[in-house]
Amino acid sequence: MERYNLVVIGAGSGGLVVAAGGSGLGARVALVEKHALPFTPEGGIAVRAMGGDCLQYGCVPSKALLRAAKAAHAGREAGRFAIRGVNDPGPQDLGAVMDYVRGAQAHIAPNDSVERFEALGVDVLLGPGRLRSAHEVDVNGTAVWGRHVVIATGSRANIPPIPGLEETGYLTNESVWHTRILPGSLLVMGGGPIGAELGQAFARLGSKVTIVSSTPHICPKEDADVAAVLVKELVSEGVTIHDNSSATRVAKRDGRKVVAVKSKSGAEFEVDVDEILVATGRRPNIEGLDLEAVGVKFGTRGIAIDAKCRTNVPSVWAIGDVAGPYLFTHWAGYQAGIVLRNTLSPVALASCDVANTPWITYTDPEIAHVGLGEEEAAKNGVSHRVFRAPFEHNDRAVCDGTWENNFAKVLVDPKGKILGATIVHPHAGDLLGEIVLAKKNGLPFSALASVIHAYPSLSEIHGAVAREYVKTSLTPSRKKILTKLAAFLRR
Amino acid sequence: MERYNLVVIGAGSGGLVVAAGGSGLGARVALVEKHALPFTPEGGIAVRAMGGDCLQYGCVPSKALLRAAKAAHAGREAGRFAIRGVNDPGPQDLGAVMDYVRGAQAHIAPNDSVERFEALGVDVLLGPGRLRSAHEVDVNGTAVWGRHVVIATGSRANIPPIPGLEETGYLTNESVWHTRILPGSLLVMGGGPIGAELGQAFARLGSKVTIVSSTPHICPKEDADVAAVLVKELVSEGVTIHDNSSATRVAKRDGRKVVAVKSKSGAEFEVDVDEILVATGRRPNIEGLDLEAVGVKFGTRGIAIDAKCRTNVPSVWAIGDVAGPYLFTHWAGYQAGIVLRNTLSPVALASCDVANTPWITYTDPEIAHVGLGEEEAAKNGVSHRVFRAPFEHNDRAVCDGTWENNFAKVLVDPKGKILGATIVHPHAGDLLGEIVLAKKNGLPFSALASVIHAYPSLSEIHGAVAREYVKTSLTPSRKKILTKLAAFLRR
Repeated sequence: MERYNLVVIGAGSGGLVVAAGGSGLGARVALVEKHALPFTPEGGIAVRAMGGDCLQYGCVPSKALLRAAKAAHAGREAGRFAIRGVNDPGPQDLGAVMDYVRGAQAHIAPNDSVERFEALGVDVLLGPGRLRSAHEVDVNGTAVWGRHVVIATGSRANIPPIPGLEETGYLTNESVWHTRILPGSLLVMGGGPIGAELGQAFARLGSKVTIVSSTPHICPKEDADVAAVLVKELVSEGVTIHDNSSATRVAKRDGRKVVAVKSKSGAEFEVDVDEILVATGRRPNIEGLDLEAVGVKFGTRGIAIDAKCRTNVPSVWAIGDVAGPYLFTHWAGYQAGIVLRNTLSPVALASCDVANTPWITYTDPEIAHVGLGEEEAAKNGVSHRVFRAPFEHNDRAVCDGTWENNFAKVLVDPKGKILGATIVHPHAGDLLGEIVLAKKNGLPFSALASVIHAYPSLSEIHGAVAREYVKTSLTPSRKKILTKLAAFLRR
Repeated sequence: MERYNLVVIGAGSGGLVVAAGGSGLGARVALVEKHALPFTPEGGIAVRAMGGDCLQYGCVPSKALLRAAKAAHAGREAGRFAIRGVNDPGPQDLGAVMDYVRGAQAHIAPNDSVERFEALGVDVLLGPGRLRSAHEVDVNGTAVWGRHVVIATGSRANIPPIPGLEETGYLTNESVWHTRILPGSLLVMGGGPIGAELGQAFARLGSKVTIVSSTPHICPKEDADVAAVLVKELVSEGVTIHDNSSATRVAKRDGRKVVAVKSKSGAEFEVDVDEILVATGRRPNIEGLDLEAVGVKFGTRGIAIDAKCRTNVPSVWAIGDVAGPYLFTHWAGYQAGIVLRNTLSPVALASCDVANTPWITYTDPEIAHVGLGEEEAAKNGVSHRVFRAPFEHNDRAVCDGTWENNFAKVLVDPKGKILGATIVHPHAGDLLGEIVLAKKNGLPFSALASVIHAYPSLSEIHGAVAREYVKTSLTPSRKKILTKLAAFLRR
């Protein structure tokens, strides 16, 4: 039986980093993947791309779709900047847009390809992986042995058991990429980041979009004041949002899909649309792994791991969506680094740093977030003060016409350290890195007030929030002393 | 005679910060300004705006113009994203665009207004300021006394003595904002940031633009590889660039402006255009201050100051464009803070931190820069290594179609500290803050590799460059040891 340092099941965001990193560090690595898709980059040669949901159905295609949708929206926006001759282009040719999306995927595909990983010295085994023991993984009937087994099988769309849904048919974040006819109307079940992003993209491409969300507001992991900015924009773009609401049954009627919706207040109504997109959460891909046989513990949220990414079975590790707690590519990649350190050195020492994990919702405006939000801090009784600054006083945002509603806020602990930050602005994601770096390295929040930000730049927002904090040190009694000093100095 | 802690001459970026800050810290402040313009913000009341070149003729109107120009350019770009029905809008109504520009200025105007500063307790004296002594400033025949006098009179366009230029007529960064008819063709003298920014804006709005630059490449303060990315974009947008070239004479012929150009290689040719924009550097506003009478030293680059912003006369300080060395609003504002600390405490202790001053050229792509560039480091014999990463492997840039040509590079000293960084990308300015913060706080460059960047975000470029640096620690001998360790671990 082939012996490896690492047998990795799943070649998505987490598994690929373990495989490439492990191989680079001199380990023997087997990478098991059941789903490789053909892609041919422009001017390049065909590859079999792995990459999991991120490349195939998630981050990459959704961001490319959002970019195309922004280009359509720019037509509607040009008048704001006094530009003549650029107008609302109306409903788009979705097939052409999907070709753009596929082009972006194809550009990235070689990086995640079977060919590249084989060239790196990784043994790529195509097929489903199944645990045979705590050290053995079966692929198509052949077993390989690993000192460590890393499960990184990801997640897939959770389909709620709504009567009539299966019979009526629906799209998920997987099947949506094969749609080539723009639906005239689209009902999005779920108001999380996937629902909000795809909802806005389709609306901008010309669909009439309705979002049905069971939470009090869309993007429920964000504070209400943050989500409200996005809601305002979506509504202004023609999106209908039903909060605190769920679909109760679905049927096909006269060729249309009819969704019965019930709100928590008791209201019931029907929405009839051309298409339904289900984005009501994710479920971990644990089926077929035979976790029970080896005794690896798991629950509805996936495989149970500790901060070192260990399962209860010493040689078995789990990372990424199948384990959580975050379902982000960068989290999976980060966990991969932790697992590399913990498996390729004789002792497992590294733990995941949950508090410094950022995330971005890629709507327009974007929502960028790290650490504690206000509601979470209040709920958990964390001692904090909140400082905020609106983009209304950021001169670059004024020149760019992005000042309305958008803002940044930072939670600071009693010692002046950053607990969390949220930025809502079309470029929020670009701006987040600065505050994550400050937080991660334990810099005092005031450091963001003393660094020079270029004028006029959006990054000045960090200085603006930090100055609100610094100001609080200028107490009335201190001001009185300074005034006396000034009077003395001008004798 | 009224006695003040601070008499500030010039209410631009530097002077306003001294005045507001000084007043806030309990000092008595007189602010002398000869140029306040009326603005009425949308839905607001009329104000007399100070703000200097930044608000009136510089940063603010140029960024608003660039934003409008980008909206026109978006029409040409839509096809790249498979969007139908959004097209090249052709030449624009410049008057309408200038109204948009004025709207942005009006939004900001109240912040820089006579009314606001009076409300802050500052005595605003409208008129030209002239030094009567080391402590006295004359305004319209009345003198005021200051424990300290801060000169912040800014700069204006430098007009080269080219035969025929005055007679033929030209625009500067001041008069350009009164233009309401788009010139069919525009010759920009000067390839610095102002020339590059306004040149691109006019080209995108529909002018045929020619840039004549005396330096080997436009944006001469940037490394050649950085400027080349911008040049490639400008040329693709139809801008003609003549490097190493100068206008030798200008004349009017058949209603057109004819500029004779001579290149350093000896070639001579004529360019005939509808309009000329002069952007060949800046000169300090020192006339009328009577510096000689008080003995304040100055040269062609302005008033001589030390790192504490002191002139040779102990009670006289100078900040901003009139003193330099940088001609940036944020530099002036930063110097203002230094002067506040040095004048309102009994001892002058604070010095300017030149090495951590960023700047951005607001073209598309933007060029964002802090600290040492490669050419400067080589010229000065500074020991360094350069690490770079292209946006070609940044997945967000791939999805957004901004991956071609753009890149980031960082100069690192032998101890792993950041010496300088340059980013060239449409969002470079948003990304710069993170690396400035790291540099300013003396974080090791490797810190940018260990912080988690959200995927897919442009800020991952910092991690990508830093990983190039971290990789260098994986030497062949270290790799050998790791390989042996891995073999041992998989027994």
